[in-house]
Amino acid sequence: MPVTTDKELEPGQDLISILLEAAPIPLVQGDIVIITHKAVAKTEGRLVKLSQVQPSPLALDYGKRYNKDARLIELVLQESASIVRMSRGCLIVKTKQGFTCANAGIDLSNIGQGSAPDHEPTACLLPKDPDLSAQRLYTSLQTRLGFAVPIVISDSFGRPWREGIVNVAIGCCGFDPFTDYRGQADSAGRILKVTRMASADALASGAELACGKLKRAPFVIIRGFNWQPSTLTAQALLRPEEKNFFP
Amino acid sequence: MPVTTDKELEPGQDLISILLEAAPIPLVQGDIVIITHKAVAKTEGRLVKLSQVQPSPLALDYGKRYNKDARLIELVLQESASIVRMSRGCLIVKTKQGFTCANAGIDLSNIGQGSAPDHEPTACLLPKDPDLSAQRLYTSLQTRLGFAVPIVISDSFGRPWREGIVNVAIGCCGFDPFTDYRGQADSAGRILKVTRMASADALASGAELACGKLKRAPFVIIRGFNWQPSTLTAQALLRPEEKNFFP
Repeated sequence: MPVTTDKELEPGQDLISILLEAAPIPLVQGDIVIITHKAVAKTEGRLVKLSQVQPSPLALDYGKRYNKDARLIELVLQESASIVRMSRGCLIVKTKQGFTCANAGIDLSNIGQGSAPDHEPTACLLPKDPDLSAQRLYTSLQTRLGFAVPIVISDSFGRPWREGIVNVAIGCCGFDPFTDYRGQADSAGRILKVTRMASADALASGAELACGKLKRAPFVIIRGFNWQPSTLTAQALLRPEEKNFFP
Repeated sequence: MPVTTDKELEPGQDLISILLEAAPIPLVQGDIVIITHKAVAKTEGRLVKLSQVQPSPLALDYGKRYNKDARLIELVLQESASIVRMSRGCLIVKTKQGFTCANAGIDLSNIGQGSAPDHEPTACLLPKDPDLSAQRLYTSLQTRLGFAVPIVISDSFGRPWREGIVNVAIGCCGFDPFTDYRGQADSAGRILKVTRMASADALASGAELACGKLKRAPFVIIRGFNWQPSTLTAQALLRPEEKNFFP
């Protein structure tokens, strides 16, 4: 169930208060809350006016070559730990947080104050440490409610080989981001060996269907998913480099 | 809402009859039905007893080197249009249907007759043409109901860079597999340029949360998602090679 709000999210605002005021139904035990990364990033002040970015020679050259804003390219480079692909105008990087994605997860839409014609274009960066953000929100929500509600911070990522983007979990707290079938028997008694579903990603992805991009719904309440408590975070969803086949 | 059945699915069975008999609620206009690829593959007879597979020298060698069943490797090779990665015991291929995935989507779990100790191990291949399967099921369901209900055939795929698997749409019929925000304005009036959500994948992925792997639920009924009619199929979700950066 999406939770919409008319509030323009600004740095320093308390997202949990906004959630609890806007929620159309009271949260109950068993619920999970999905929060868009943009709501988190905005309230954490992860906004950069493009006019304040000084592009490097590399960013200037690449921007010129592919008709892109060099200041945005510079920001992407600054948020990156390494560059995975930089060709044909595309920038796929590994971010400092460990995510492999296009443009370091930076985007210019739904920022609010930076987008109207009389304002400067503003970029929204990923939260510095989305798991820490999730933990902070989780603790705050638990304090207010008196019981624990897991938190997932979602963002939309592209995929190799497949068109369109889907949401994934970039931060989470309070539950096991996997549903682990390994060691369990299937309907015919055969033990499953490798099946581990990335349920946090599926929750993030499913939540997008409920909230959409244009509805001003920074939160989605998920009810009825049988989660297990865990101290694992969204970092567990990142494949260690030595297990990766790509790039 | 998951639809469970006690029926062991076998080649030639009518999935739509099984769905309509097992559904705990009547289908209504606006619903979407997600069907696991395994239910489709089983009823289409896409099962191969490993004892009937003659492994090639390549499959024998690779199997020996990584302690894997050479007959399964042979099947993977036979279902592949090209090999993307074949190292460290892993086999990531582009299937004849166009999907880039591990082991050509072949697996040995939840097959039923092949899994009990007194039966031979049996592999389940992907449907030959999942979009055609989806179309066939869609037409059959529409004839029975008198109105159209979109169909998604789902399978679980791994991802580069991320741990755990998520479900994606490998076949679909009757609705637009994308939610296209391109050209629409965000909350601040800024036109979105690139945002196109792979909603069919998100539906497949979200449905898995409802049905799980061990519940004998080959169907999930999705209610409340605002889909648009379309002639696009799951092939539209495959990125053309010239747009791919990987491998």
